[in-house]
Amino acid sequence: MNTPIHYTVGPSQLYPTVVAHIQDALDLNIMSISHRSAQFLEIYHDTSNRLRHLLTLPPAVHIFFVGSSLESMERTIENCVQEHCFHFVDGAFSAKWHQFALELGKKAQKIEARDGEGFHLDQEIPADTELICITQNETSTGVAIQPAAISGLKDRYPDKLIAVDTVSSCPFVTLDMTKVDIMFFSPQKGFGLPAGMGVLLVSEAAVAKTKEMQKKGATIGTYHSFLSLLQSEQVDQTPETPNVLGIYLLGKVCADLQERGIELIRDQTRAKSKLIYDTFSAHSRFRPHVQVPDFRSDTVVVIETPAEAGEIIKGLRSRGIIVASGYGKRSNDQIRIANFPAHDYSDLKEWISSI
Amino acid sequence: MNTPIHYTVGPSQLYPTVVAHIQDALDLNIMSISHRSAQFLEIYHDTSNRLRHLLTLPPAVHIFFVGSSLESMERTIENCVQEHCFHFVDGAFSAKWHQFALELGKKAQKIEARDGEGFHLDQEIPADTELICITQNETSTGVAIQPAAISGLKDRYPDKLIAVDTVSSCPFVTLDMTKVDIMFFSPQKGFGLPAGMGVLLVSEAAVAKTKEMQKKGATIGTYHSFLSLLQSEQVDQTPETPNVLGIYLLGKVCADLQERGIELIRDQTRAKSKLIYDTFSAHSRFRPHVQVPDFRSDTVVVIETPAEAGEIIKGLRSRGIIVASGYGKRSNDQIRIANFPAHDYSDLKEWISSI
Repeated sequence: MNTPIHYTVGPSQLYPTVVAHIQDALDLNIMSISHRSAQFLEIYHDTSNRLRHLLTLPPAVHIFFVGSSLESMERTIENCVQEHCFHFVDGAFSAKWHQFALELGKKAQKIEARDGEGFHLDQEIPADTELICITQNETSTGVAIQPAAISGLKDRYPDKLIAVDTVSSCPFVTLDMTKVDIMFFSPQKGFGLPAGMGVLLVSEAAVAKTKEMQKKGATIGTYHSFLSLLQSEQVDQTPETPNVLGIYLLGKVCADLQERGIELIRDQTRAKSKLIYDTFSAHSRFRPHVQVPDFRSDTVVVIETPAEAGEIIKGLRSRGIIVASGYGKRSNDQIRIANFPAHDYSDLKEWISSI
Repeated sequence: MNTPIHYTVGPSQLYPTVVAHIQDALDLNIMSISHRSAQFLEIYHDTSNRLRHLLTLPPAVHIFFVGSSLESMERTIENCVQEHCFHFVDGAFSAKWHQFALELGKKAQKIEARDGEGFHLDQEIPADTELICITQNETSTGVAIQPAAISGLKDRYPDKLIAVDTVSSCPFVTLDMTKVDIMFFSPQKGFGLPAGMGVLLVSEAAVAKTKEMQKKGATIGTYHSFLSLLQSEQVDQTPETPNVLGIYLLGKVCADLQERGIELIRDQTRAKSKLIYDTFSAHSRFRPHVQVPDFRSDTVVVIETPAEAGEIIKGLRSRGIIVASGYGKRSNDQIRIANFPAHDYSDLKEWISSI
């Protein structure tokens, strides 16, 4: 059997340069250096800069490193919602985010899309909403929300904070951070890195909200409150001992993606997603789960494979192709195929038509 | 220059087998597998078992993987304190833990030791205390508290929960978990692993307290509440996508330490710490920061080097020996030397007497 290729939705295939970067990290003792050393500060600074460049983030946006994207969800609620938030729910992860807000004692409202559908975000949002939560790319359903719709929301609701989960779409998707206050993602998906870190982008307006909440005596958490993260960010550090290797590798892969050309990567991503959607739209027994083209994710494609998911996954695995099962209750009748920068068009073409 | 040896207090020198284990992890695609796959469940199970064996943990103790030991501090307060906790403060990290409790809105009392001193834990503890917090090994001051004193505390206060930070002493120190409810540590210290994870050991009594708090409507957090961590632990998983590589490596290094012999490692640790303390007790200008032998940490040794810390660190660095500066304000007049299982007696002997 050839070395398998992982089309799982994250963790997924490592970006091709990662193995060499890990070797360099070992040679340079990156895993032994102190997280308060000048050498680490340089790594932190470099990774922040390269990420800012790759995602074209304005200088005012803060870049925080946390433990996972579930942590990003929790900290966002904790630091930006005194009482009221509003959630667009289009799958299991957006539902979880809403649930987190309830568990943190917030008055969390939601609107739910039908399974396999997303939002144009044209709904009326309650006036007392402090934070609007949007899952731009639902890893469970393969539903995406158009970035333009998200930008439009800020124009309609300039006084509300907007938080967007791009966990499994970034860096294919980046958002106009003048129209969004929070954006977060996980490097083990679109960046092809080992898991164990989350990246949380935060606007000045969101930090101002946290300060206001703190003044009012709200609980905003401790070492990972936005204020604590901010204080450390200003000296190129994290409050805790972070995933030093993860931060190092993220910077290296950002540079690699930049060099390859992020717009080229986006074109390639669209070409690959077209190949997958076209293949299954023309299939005799299977079809894409998301029917409305505007709601189709380019980076996580969910395919309806009634009662055959297990067989397909097994068959592909025997050929060295690893795809994900459907999420939760859909594990038997859906498969999910990741389409990240680490995935190659010709590799994909070789097996996709044989299903 | 030879390959440097890191005697920093964590991140520190990698355990000698780690490089080979990382190579294996790459060969086995460990960084690409899904955290919901059978392969990951096996890794999780294996690591838990090996850690339980190494630290002789009773079967009833839960093993949770979190992001860092600062997270362990926060989650412990969040999940075990409705109102009142009591903190033994013998340095910067125990002070931080107390501060976290205040930030989470708890009525947190403390007793502070003089700089360089610890506790025999014979103080009277307020009757309304729900959780007693002890920093067994203070990474900032090199102060340790005797494990026997900690066990004795439970005999005096059987109805109170006891949480112990062994961040920089485990696995040299393990505690009798029938006398302690929470114990946590960071693998980048005594286990010689890359940073980016915390390990949190939790008793049934602590979980019962969390359940009771939840019933009373307290906020216990979301994805990393003890109840959420417990639910995932029962199926050999974590709520979030975890540091898969970190969990894999921890299991491998636990096995290596076990094979080498944990009691032998402890003897070697004591021999090395004796060498360091003896050397500096006999030194003309420098001396151990902690004077009372009972309060001296074996794994983090702090040395008073008035006004010379920078020079010493620089001089050692030129010879490939990396030690840590004093913590915070003591960075100019103290150095800190880690003494972990990754550190070899003869390597240490070669340079320690030359200072």
